[in-house]
Amino acid sequence: MPISYDRTVHFADTDAAGVVFFANYLAICHEAYEESLSASGIDLKAFFADHGIVIPIVKCEADYRRPLSCGDKLRVTVQPALLAEDSYEIRFEITRLGTSAKSAARVRTEHVCIDSGTRARKALPGPLSAWVRAG
Amino acid sequence: MPISYDRTVHFADTDAAGVVFFANYLAICHEAYEESLSASGIDLKAFFADHGIVIPIVKCEADYRRPLSCGDKLRVTVQPALLAEDSYEIRFEITRLGTSAKSAARVRTEHVCIDSGTRARKALPGPLSAWVRAG
Amino acid sequence: MPISYDRTVHFADTDAAGVVFFANYLAICHEAYEESLSASGIDLKAFFADHGIVIPIVKCEADYRRPLSCGDKLRVTVQPALLAEDSYEIRFEITRLGTSAKSAARVRTEHVCIDSGTRARKALPGPLSAWVRAG
Amino acid sequence: MPISYDRTVHFADTDAAGVVFFANYLAICHEAYEESLSASGIDLKAFFADHGIVIPIVKCEADYRRPLSCGDKLRVTVQPALLAEDSYEIRFEITRLGTSAKSAARVRTEHVCIDSGTRARKALPGPLSAWVRAG
Repeated sequence: MPISYDRTVHFADTDAAGVVFFANYLAICHEAYEESLSASGIDLKAFFADHGIVIPIVKCEADYRRPLSCGDKLRVTVQPALLAEDSYEIRFEITRLGTSAKSAARVRTEHVCIDSGTRARKALPGPLSAWVRAG
Repeated sequence: MPISYDRTVHFADTDAAGVVFFANYLAICHEAYEESLSASGIDLKAFFADHGIVIPIVKCEADYRRPLSCGDKLRVTVQPALLAEDSYEIRFEITRLGTSAKSAARVRTEHVCIDSGTRARKALPGPLSAWVRAG
Repeated sequence: MPISYDRTVHFADTDAAGVVFFANYLAICHEAYEESLSASGIDLKAFFADHGIVIPIVKCEADYRRPLSCGDKLRVTVQPALLAEDSYEIRFEITRLGTSAKSAARVRTEHVCIDSGTRARKALPGPLSAWVRAG
Repeated sequence: MPISYDRTVHFADTDAAGVVFFANYLAICHEAYEESLSASGIDLKAFFADHGIVIPIVKCEADYRRPLSCGDKLRVTVQPALLAEDSYEIRFEITRLGTSAKSAARVRTEHVCIDSGTRARKALPGPLSAWVRAG
């Protein structure tokens, strides 16, 4: 079951072309990821700090379909999937809500769990693995 | 009656000191301003675009009282006041919610309405003036 | 001949994991794109404003290879290529400079020239086409 | 002797009003602060991480005088001054360069050195104190 996150476009997300700056679509998807982790009981402050294990994003891809303006109402769906015992992907879809909802972007990120000292791959911690499997 | 806006601290708000970057407190306050304008019926996309009249921020001040971490729950209050027929200030307070709510920052911004071509001061448009007076 | 852009990692680029936030690699590549356009004589303010023709990014991809910290010295290479008369891609490589320079990320963006009113595809303007061909 | 830092306005600094977002003036000043610290031999990665001592910004103020557009060339001067043995202020001036250089903003930040565990004030570390005194 994908999780969804609602978000209004802020003025700070936009650029001088009048619409959301391309890199900010990724930041918006990351917020949806954070909300979803938090909803599953994971403590965000501890999760994103470096306590020996870190889970960096190693790849991302985005397809931009529609421009987004300040005040637009968005819904972001978050669909994680295991790739291996030490990695997962997340597929995000950003929909612009309104009288006719429209897909505004699709984003995919790939995450690998590593030891922050040695950079060796490590199995996902249990609560994170449970979050991915429940996605 | 001050308006309030609830917001979770996002990972993208933080910096390598582990807490919200000082300039991002101002961006968070601006979001609260946008929500408040929008709640009063002002169309944000039109408001922030340049249609001959613009209302730039000419001053801001911030007192930082507490660090904020990813996942922290915030409440931002927005208290506008007229300074003249062509300008207003907004006082924001950011509170970190939790078992004991704490003031995290106070921010003040000053806004002046001008003609974007001539840079001459102009009286506030009616809906904006009404928003300020209702604050 | 690829164009290169040197940049120091700023504190505001980083997040609470102590390294550059994944979306900010894309913003850094966009700066390199801007510098390269500017060096070829294109006026950035006019280029990025909406004057009837806009050239949005329709896809991007990034491979992240190394974390980047505040103060790191980067070199970004910019390699554009035509995809059609109305579109081009840019391949960026971010290298972390130092005693042994290391590739930190590869990024690819895809750009399409459109009429901002009708969203119909348009041939690239001459100076932009010349920039792509010279890349 | 004030230190100066040159910077081009990036597209990501701007917002849908076509000019630099007000909070980003502060981020630009912080870059100038980083460059100045780095030029005095201070290691930025270690300086901004939390190693028991942190030096948060406790106040900031900005006067905005001119809008800034993508591609504008800026010069930022950095003038630190001791306030006490555990605190200092920095005065920044952002000038838009060109045929007639114009002041675009004045910014002031106030910094206090504290123990990150107890939040008790601490005297500035020697290299930082030397940087402030040389400013």
